[in-house]
Amino acid sequence: MKSQKHTSLTGLWNPVVEGLAPYTPGEQVEGEGVVKLNTNENPYPPSPHVIDIIGKRADETLRLYPDPEAKELKSALADFHEIDASQIFVGNGSDEVLGMIFSALFHRSSPLLFPDVTYGFYRVFCRLFGQPCRELPLTEGLELNPADYLASNGGILFPNPNAPTGLMLSLDQIRFIADKNSESVLVVDEAYIDFGGETAMVLLKRCQNLVIVRTFSKSRALAGLRIGYAVAHPVLIDALARVKNCFNPYPLDRLAIAAAAASVKDRAYFNKTRRQIMCTRERTARKLKEIGFHVVPSCANFVLASHPVVSAEKIKNELQKKQIWIRHFKAPRIENYVRITIGTDREMDICVNEIQKIVD
Amino acid sequence: MKSQKHTSLTGLWNPVVEGLAPYTPGEQVEGEGVVKLNTNENPYPPSPHVIDIIGKRADETLRLYPDPEAKELKSALADFHEIDASQIFVGNGSDEVLGMIFSALFHRSSPLLFPDVTYGFYRVFCRLFGQPCRELPLTEGLELNPADYLASNGGILFPNPNAPTGLMLSLDQIRFIADKNSESVLVVDEAYIDFGGETAMVLLKRCQNLVIVRTFSKSRALAGLRIGYAVAHPVLIDALARVKNCFNPYPLDRLAIAAAAASVKDRAYFNKTRRQIMCTRERTARKLKEIGFHVVPSCANFVLASHPVVSAEKIKNELQKKQIWIRHFKAPRIENYVRITIGTDREMDICVNEIQKIVD
Repeated sequence: MKSQKHTSLTGLWNPVVEGLAPYTPGEQVEGEGVVKLNTNENPYPPSPHVIDIIGKRADETLRLYPDPEAKELKSALADFHEIDASQIFVGNGSDEVLGMIFSALFHRSSPLLFPDVTYGFYRVFCRLFGQPCRELPLTEGLELNPADYLASNGGILFPNPNAPTGLMLSLDQIRFIADKNSESVLVVDEAYIDFGGETAMVLLKRCQNLVIVRTFSKSRALAGLRIGYAVAHPVLIDALARVKNCFNPYPLDRLAIAAAAASVKDRAYFNKTRRQIMCTRERTARKLKEIGFHVVPSCANFVLASHPVVSAEKIKNELQKKQIWIRHFKAPRIENYVRITIGTDREMDICVNEIQKIVD
Repeated sequence: MKSQKHTSLTGLWNPVVEGLAPYTPGEQVEGEGVVKLNTNENPYPPSPHVIDIIGKRADETLRLYPDPEAKELKSALADFHEIDASQIFVGNGSDEVLGMIFSALFHRSSPLLFPDVTYGFYRVFCRLFGQPCRELPLTEGLELNPADYLASNGGILFPNPNAPTGLMLSLDQIRFIADKNSESVLVVDEAYIDFGGETAMVLLKRCQNLVIVRTFSKSRALAGLRIGYAVAHPVLIDALARVKNCFNPYPLDRLAIAAAAASVKDRAYFNKTRRQIMCTRERTARKLKEIGFHVVPSCANFVLASHPVVSAEKIKNELQKKQIWIRHFKAPRIENYVRITIGTDREMDICVNEIQKIVD
């Protein structure tokens, strides 16, 4: 019998692997005294109905496969958004939903268009899927200019509000981009829409090339359970379902389906917590301005802010020594900004007080 | 503004979508009086420790992202298998793990080799990933012949025991295939190994091109929670992790990680239930032979059986009228076999009694 010949086992890798450059998420730190404002999680717990239903459903039925269609969740979402369940695709977090969109709805023959300053995972997906892309610079004020999105493309993708800026496009601007690109799919990632933005759901009837992506990780405080979804015309949803059924037919487990449905049904709690976060955001932005920061007006559960004198990197590092974790991107154009997730009022007070000491 | 021009929205699909042919899983039926023996689920509940830990972990921490490395689970698996955590990759069910293997470790330049009678999903993955493949016929006795696996290839993949036959290859045979193919990866899908088969884990040191895939959906009674894993040399695991981190960094949620770890730690319960299923399998096989069936000797939690007179399709349909669900594949070579999952003794008695009435 022949012995293994490899000098290096990396020779067994598919060639695509060498070229990959994974997204670096914010650190998952835990522990006493940690103020975690680095991954845009919700400071409030999920709806109490979520905890209840998990207790009830954690029983012997876990031995059975989940419903591959996740009908319980789609039905709750259809009621919530006043749409048909056939317009909904659900997946294991919005990252997986975006992965399905890359497989099913973007075209490799032309570049995908997205902003130069945006969610870093888009670039990562492009490498994995061999999707050519063109990053279109935001304006000097970090705004997306719809007129830039008229070039031939294999798809368009941006968050609204954008991350990490928190800035919104209007519905008129989104409609303009959708209408001018009827030969390709426009994906609007509404991960942060519940913190004061105006959803593009109302455009779905008119713009059949529009796909809206949502997550349960931010406004619904369920990052730990991995649930995302897309809303679009049933023909586009069908493409996503076909790919899903050829990859992983059951991405949502029994508890995640039940928990997500319970979250959607508890509208009062959802509205109370997201409004509280918006109040805290405005209060935090005000305080940061008072101590000299430029704060980008945010419609999300974070603020992007820069100080005229003290570098963002220094602010991040000094805060970290005090167990306060925020995010800093070593990326062109935003390297002098810090991104601070909105936590509770108390957490933001701790954070802003420490920042004040650093910049004083 | 220009109006939508599409006569058909399918024009927006990525061209790959049209060619997809999803795997058809067994029906997920539920209800009073149903005897569900069609999807190889476990008839016993998961370990009581699994239910306990879910109750404990279903709390406000669900608002936080899970550990993308799932260290708690990898550590439990490393202890269980007496290997290093760096040899383990975990994912959202073994289907997702296989998807990562298709992306990261198979080569498109040569065909993937797998048996003509095997898990139907392999074929589905090939279409999705544009992976050329060659299906190698099993022998007349439905056995895999290692000597067939010497052709140039971009990877080799088979379940051991095979599905839906339940037949095993010996470790010598697996080692022969691994050694003769040191330039490509050999993936052994051990979904059903815990029902009496001999694992290929012992070959990992010698065969660095070997990847073993496992699932929590069968012997661990956790199909509802979606957990699978792969064990291989750390360099191959690194390739899987790179692709995962470019696609969906957190495929396992907080509850699934905790539940899976609790399941692995409860060895007594695991051994008790899997042994019970093996006893019931032997008892069922004996009874089926007594009423005239040819039963393929199975090392899995199902049996494949055919009757010399009554067609498999008829048996399946007649049983279904009595709310007893088994599986029949309209596929060459096995079209006259039924595949019956091993349930409790009581369920198998009900099933065999009804079958006796049909064939009498």
